[in-house]
Amino acid sequence: MPAYATNMRTKFPIVALALEIITIILFAVFVVYDDGKGHGHDTHSNETHHKEAQPMDLYPMFQDVHVMIFIGFGFLMTFLKRYGFSSVGLNLLLAAFGLQWGLLTQGLWHLDDGKIKVNIFKIINADFSTATVLISFGAVLGKTSPVQLLIMTILEITVFSINEHLVATVLKANDVGASMIIHAFGAYFGLAVARVLYRPGLKNGHENNGSVYHSDLFAMIGTVFLWMFWPSFNSAIADAGFTQLTAVVNTYLSLAACVLSAYAISSLVEHKGKLDMVHIQNATLAGGVAVGTCADMNIGPYGAMLIGLVAGGISTLGFKYLTPLLASKLGIQDTCGVHNLHGMPGILGGLAGIVAVALGKKEGGVAAMQAAALASSLGFALVGGALTGLIMKLPFWGQPPDQNCFDDSIYWEVPEEEEENEESLTHADHSKNKVEV
Amino acid sequence: MPAYATNMRTKFPIVALALEIITIILFAVFVVYDDGKGHGHDTHSNETHHKEAQPMDLYPMFQDVHVMIFIGFGFLMTFLKRYGFSSVGLNLLLAAFGLQWGLLTQGLWHLDDGKIKVNIFKIINADFSTATVLISFGAVLGKTSPVQLLIMTILEITVFSINEHLVATVLKANDVGASMIIHAFGAYFGLAVARVLYRPGLKNGHENNGSVYHSDLFAMIGTVFLWMFWPSFNSAIADAGFTQLTAVVNTYLSLAACVLSAYAISSLVEHKGKLDMVHIQNATLAGGVAVGTCADMNIGPYGAMLIGLVAGGISTLGFKYLTPLLASKLGIQDTCGVHNLHGMPGILGGLAGIVAVALGKKEGGVAAMQAAALASSLGFALVGGALTGLIMKLPFWGQPPDQNCFDDSIYWEVPEEEEENEESLTHADHSKNKVEV
Amino acid sequence: MPAYATNMRTKFPIVALALEIITIILFAVFVVYDDGKGHGHDTHSNETHHKEAQPMDLYPMFQDVHVMIFIGFGFLMTFLKRYGFSSVGLNLLLAAFGLQWGLLTQGLWHLDDGKIKVNIFKIINADFSTATVLISFGAVLGKTSPVQLLIMTILEITVFSINEHLVATVLKANDVGASMIIHAFGAYFGLAVARVLYRPGLKNGHENNGSVYHSDLFAMIGTVFLWMFWPSFNSAIADAGFTQLTAVVNTYLSLAACVLSAYAISSLVEHKGKLDMVHIQNATLAGGVAVGTCADMNIGPYGAMLIGLVAGGISTLGFKYLTPLLASKLGIQDTCGVHNLHGMPGILGGLAGIVAVALGKKEGGVAAMQAAALASSLGFALVGGALTGLIMKLPFWGQPPDQNCFDDSIYWEVPEEEEENEESLTHADHSKNKVEV
Repeated sequence: MPAYATNMRTKFPIVALALEIITIILFAVFVVYDDGKGHGHDTHSNETHHKEAQPMDLYPMFQDVHVMIFIGFGFLMTFLKRYGFSSVGLNLLLAAFGLQWGLLTQGLWHLDDGKIKVNIFKIINADFSTATVLISFGAVLGKTSPVQLLIMTILEITVFSINEHLVATVLKANDVGASMIIHAFGAYFGLAVARVLYRPGLKNGHENNGSVYHSDLFAMIGTVFLWMFWPSFNSAIADAGFTQLTAVVNTYLSLAACVLSAYAISSLVEHKGKLDMVHIQNATLAGGVAVGTCADMNIGPYGAMLIGLVAGGISTLGFKYLTPLLASKLGIQDTCGVHNLHGMPGILGGLAGIVAVALGKKEGGVAAMQAAALASSLGFALVGGALTGLIMKLPFWGQPPDQNCFDDSIYWEVPEEEEENEESLTHADHSKNKVEV
Repeated sequence: MPAYATNMRTKFPIVALALEIITIILFAVFVVYDDGKGHGHDTHSNETHHKEAQPMDLYPMFQDVHVMIFIGFGFLMTFLKRYGFSSVGLNLLLAAFGLQWGLLTQGLWHLDDGKIKVNIFKIINADFSTATVLISFGAVLGKTSPVQLLIMTILEITVFSINEHLVATVLKANDVGASMIIHAFGAYFGLAVARVLYRPGLKNGHENNGSVYHSDLFAMIGTVFLWMFWPSFNSAIADAGFTQLTAVVNTYLSLAACVLSAYAISSLVEHKGKLDMVHIQNATLAGGVAVGTCADMNIGPYGAMLIGLVAGGISTLGFKYLTPLLASKLGIQDTCGVHNLHGMPGILGGLAGIVAVALGKKEGGVAAMQAAALASSLGFALVGGALTGLIMKLPFWGQPPDQNCFDDSIYWEVPEEEEENEESLTHADHSKNKVEV
Repeated sequence: MPAYATNMRTKFPIVALALEIITIILFAVFVVYDDGKGHGHDTHSNETHHKEAQPMDLYPMFQDVHVMIFIGFGFLMTFLKRYGFSSVGLNLLLAAFGLQWGLLTQGLWHLDDGKIKVNIFKIINADFSTATVLISFGAVLGKTSPVQLLIMTILEITVFSINEHLVATVLKANDVGASMIIHAFGAYFGLAVARVLYRPGLKNGHENNGSVYHSDLFAMIGTVFLWMFWPSFNSAIADAGFTQLTAVVNTYLSLAACVLSAYAISSLVEHKGKLDMVHIQNATLAGGVAVGTCADMNIGPYGAMLIGLVAGGISTLGFKYLTPLLASKLGIQDTCGVHNLHGMPGILGGLAGIVAVALGKKEGGVAAMQAAALASSLGFALVGGALTGLIMKLPFWGQPPDQNCFDDSIYWEVPEEEEENEESLTHADHSKNKVEV
């Protein structure tokens, strides 16, 4: 099967090391520490407001975001029974590379004396840029090689940085919690990639595309950390003071209301009124996504809760009814259902932002610019994702064959079965008897 | 078995959505953002001292408490072999609803221009209010339906808010770390509920009321996060500055000493001196509970350590000897042993507070008021819990029959067994082969 | 087998309680709260710069370090299939005792009016002191009793405090992130202990010295929390302001670069280019260790990335090629491979510090003093570890026999097998059917 040369031994080390060495060279040329003596010629619409009073003021916010990126996204995807190593492990790899690349591509728009001056605000934004990739990763989870994913990382973050600059600096649109520029963008970019990489061989499902009891619990670690720290995500780069407080309160309440609707609708649509872990793991977070654009606006606590209530319902219904349709009718196989967690709630967030700005809930906001920002984010995502998918489809990146999808063992050493106990072999029992040295 | 109509399909969605919609309406009427322009007519004994210098000053403390509520309590209860979805999942549901309800019921005592003005201090207290429910949840874990638990949430938080107001504002008692008003209250409320819901059918135990190896490890995630962030719990609403530092140091040291006594006594009372995971998961935390009332008092670092030492011992002995007696003699089936982690250590904390105040360790404290606060907390808990239990006992809330207790599958879609491997079926092997769509 | 009296029933409770009671007495004599009124006669080279503006300024940093100690180290070691209770449980025990002991032994060098005044800076350092023990614990994991480990804790922290004082106060060397005084020290101390406790019976390996699928995922919880919060570890006690920011940025970037080289080299050296979880769990962190000494120096962002790149590669190669040699040729059985994560990267960090100081990257630094600090740390570690090992080897501390190594059940109550299902018994299936009481 020559098209499936999945041995990574030469390809992956070469690509990974080459990317890292190129990145280090670019850092040597462009990146210095922020010493607080910048000329302030920064054109970034947000950054001017956000010069921290002290260099470390935003550090606790940064660490919350950091946990969301590495624990939150990483463990959320461990729900698959045999793909946990890849979920949390490749999440770490992609985010670790992505934050470096994002620091460069975002920073190039905001040079100060020809340099990118790194501070906490910039590393928060670098972490943010990786979130787009991790969302897209969810759409193609289990069906791509590490090399393909590194390629997606570099391309998606580059496109993201262009769109982000356009939205924030040119259009001067508001998107403090990034419903549009991260969530909708990441979801539709990933769905476009998934469409290009459509696998007819998986249309009847795959044995390993499901959970076991404990993998669902690991995933809940991701869910709960994302849920808890989402107020930090939506407020980290808000204007300091009461505006930031507003972003925290709106997100906290939207998420709380969202939990109730996610649980209620899950029970309503499932057999015998039972709750479905897939809904709980994902749809409970939709309120954080959907309130993102409006988070720092004066929409009222009840307004935030209404957004969360609607988001939790839409998201759950999407998992139940829309995801199967997207796969069977449009050929979009969305492993984690990112369309339901990030796609639709992201658009809902963008629309809510247009309405809120039109109602005057944000000083200086222009509704048309909000609409343009949403359109721009969706356009860059779909076109960028489709082109990226075509590049990823080239036959020499080690993409796994259908039968090896959703299985760590194709790219990882996995603990082997105990031979003495072959009769009663179970997954939990695959133990690698390493020879102690 | 008509009394056990456990199908949640109509009941649960209706109750959950109705509660959420009523809550949103109340928020629309009463709740606004804190804009820092309050009239300061607040009568809350603590809040006057706690006006933060900046709106976000307490945010890192809030996030620590948030982690305790959602990860700490949630995963602590995943020790049961087949009840992990419910433990972490229903913990999320109850806390998400509870924090909204707590924000209302606590806030109504402190209206400013007729409004509840939300800030970080208030959302910390909202999170606190949910802790009472999560403690009581531990007592009835595995034996109640989601609808019953939502009813308990709304009633318990209402009663809590009355008692909290009485203790803090009327009696002006000190309870910075809430040994009395949260821990003892939550424990005895839950035990009263458990007594009313006594199940004779479980007096000889239940196959699923136990752990497996990995469920015990999941529970340790909860234990360790609770243990680490307890200094934040006990100091979050302490007076800023050195008083807050005192609360942190006392809690840090009490917990450290408590670990040693919990381990030592566990080994002492167990077969062959082995350690018991139930003790380690729970009794190591008793020092945080017991030092709560005194946390911001000048009891000396060694004083805090003595409290922790005693608490760890009492708690471990309670698990070993008292819990069985409560069940067999009094009909109180306490699934998680909350009496040992929150009940007795909470009373110990209240008593230590009386002594410390009598010894002049807290400026302005009155020992009689401390005693009254403890009595009030226990009284409200027992009466409120008993009445709540009676309401929960009504036969139409979908309570599980005895044989389905401690089993997620009654309210959750659980990954199914692999049919091709029925012979060697084990729990870890129950995998749901979802059809990919 | 009289030499293996592993029953802990009397020994362990007596040792644990005696140590705790002695510690409390010492605290009663020496330890008070910091009230901010110190005479400033402190000779600690760092502390003078670090008087926090407010008592709680460093608290978020402290909590990050706290998570690394208790979740990070604890779960990192849960990779063994049957040693998870001990890994996370004994980690808690040793760190809880160690932080108390470290507070005393470090504090005695910095008395103020004859007292140790506890503040956040001091409890960060107390947590740091426990890290040395937890690193050494990794070398002897699975092969020592709880009593032996308590002895190691008290001795290692005492020696650490002497070396730390020498390095920081006498030599006035820089080691902000503690590459030398914690990582290299802890690793070589542990390796010296492991050498003394060499077990020829394990030279052909042990059935339980390996992972299962889910134990590897539990370990990733530890890895990722360590990875995320390492910038806090390396910057917690740095000078406030831009120096602290430099330490954060250098560590963030070093770790990011390190991930790429760890993954690349792991794939390069493994069968068919597959990734090895042992490398990913450990070598991805080597960049945090290696950049420690230089973290607050002006080495440039690219300089930090180069250090991380090299560290990730060295560490992975060490796991693959050096660890087997150390065991077979030198009789050093290093269960977790701490030589690869803390030993070599710690030395690399010390060497990088010498070079950086020689190049003038740190104002006031003296290269010779850096070299002396590295030599001192290694010398104290090897001699202290060897002597400690000899004491631990005394035959009455309950050391496990070879066949019971790497097995929780020798010191813990472990959920028992289900008897009705003996045929298909698997590890995940060991469930303890507790009788409900």
